Amino acid sequence: MEASLINPFINAALNVIQTMAFTQVTPGKPCLKSNKVTFGDVTGIIGLASETITGSMVLSFEEKAILTIVGRMLYSEYKEINQEVVDAVGELTNMISGGAKGELSEKGYIFSMATPTMVLGKDVSITQLTQEPIISIPFSMEEGAFVIEANIMKKTNKKL
Amino acid sequence: MEASLINPFINAALNVIQTMAFTQVTPGKPCLKSNKVTFGDVTGIIGLASETITGSMVLSFEEKAILTIVGRMLYSEYKEINQEVVDAVGELTNMISGGAKGELSEKGYIFSMATPTMVLGKDVSITQLTQEPIISIPFSMEEGAFVIEANIMKKTNKKL
Repeated sequence: MEASLINPFINAALNVIQTMAFTQVTPGKPCLKSNKVTFGDVTGIIGLASETITGSMVLSFEEKAILTIVGRMLYSEYKEINQEVVDAVGELTNMISGGAKGELSEKGYIFSMATPTMVLGKDVSITQLTQEPIISIPFSMEEGAFVIEANIMKKTNKKL
Repeated sequence: MEASLINPFINAALNVIQTMAFTQVTPGKPCLKSNKVTFGDVTGIIGLASETITGSMVLSFEEKAILTIVGRMLYSEYKEINQEVVDAVGELTNMISGGAKGELSEKGYIFSMATPTMVLGKDVSITQLTQEPIISIPFSMEEGAFVIEANIMKKTNKKL
């Protein structure tokens, strides 16, 4: 996945979290995903697909981070990850990949989004079946951290 | 999701497991997914998407079932779920949704497939962000069981 494809995900995450949860988050340095265990306590997964593109985006939150974000989104207080929080992770996954989709389409990466899936569980191993490197983008906020793991490729033999 | 959309997933599962693992499995009665906790020990998830369709397919195996299937696929013996087994779950997820895709396209459901994601972990809660009912299709074989959870809908206001 080429570097220019990373920024649309960063921009979308900053924008969605700012708009929905009035929270400024700081992106860290993107790196290749090296370990299999997914970072967070609750994770959203969304498939990205078209006749020319295949990919996915994973959005994984530490418990404290997501409780803060969803609390601000829904003007409420959450002390634990319940189904409402899990559903909000799905919505955020949808919104961030939807935000990235617009910017990526300008770069020739045109795709549709599948139904988001949410995974709740600690020390869960989440892996992708792809030969492409997966880019991991860390984000931090005062109350914790989250990460986006993205992979997207054109369905040709050309490596991105 | 209308009933006629279930058979393509059943047919594809029977065909793929028979062809790849020389194993006959028996489909049980499809039902609505009622609980949040996913059935199996290892699970493949794939997004289905196009300009007109959004959906996903989940394929979740009991440990004994997947160790038997992958052992037969790769002419080897597996005593635990390692990364090779996890990757095989991703391949099976790809193959079964790919098999269903052909039959579904004849019914006007035309979509592309995203990158498969595999989740390893017990008692993990896996949910989908959809208003549509999710159909759960159980399969049994001598050595254990697996399940397909499918949701697919046209992007209109019309409920399927």
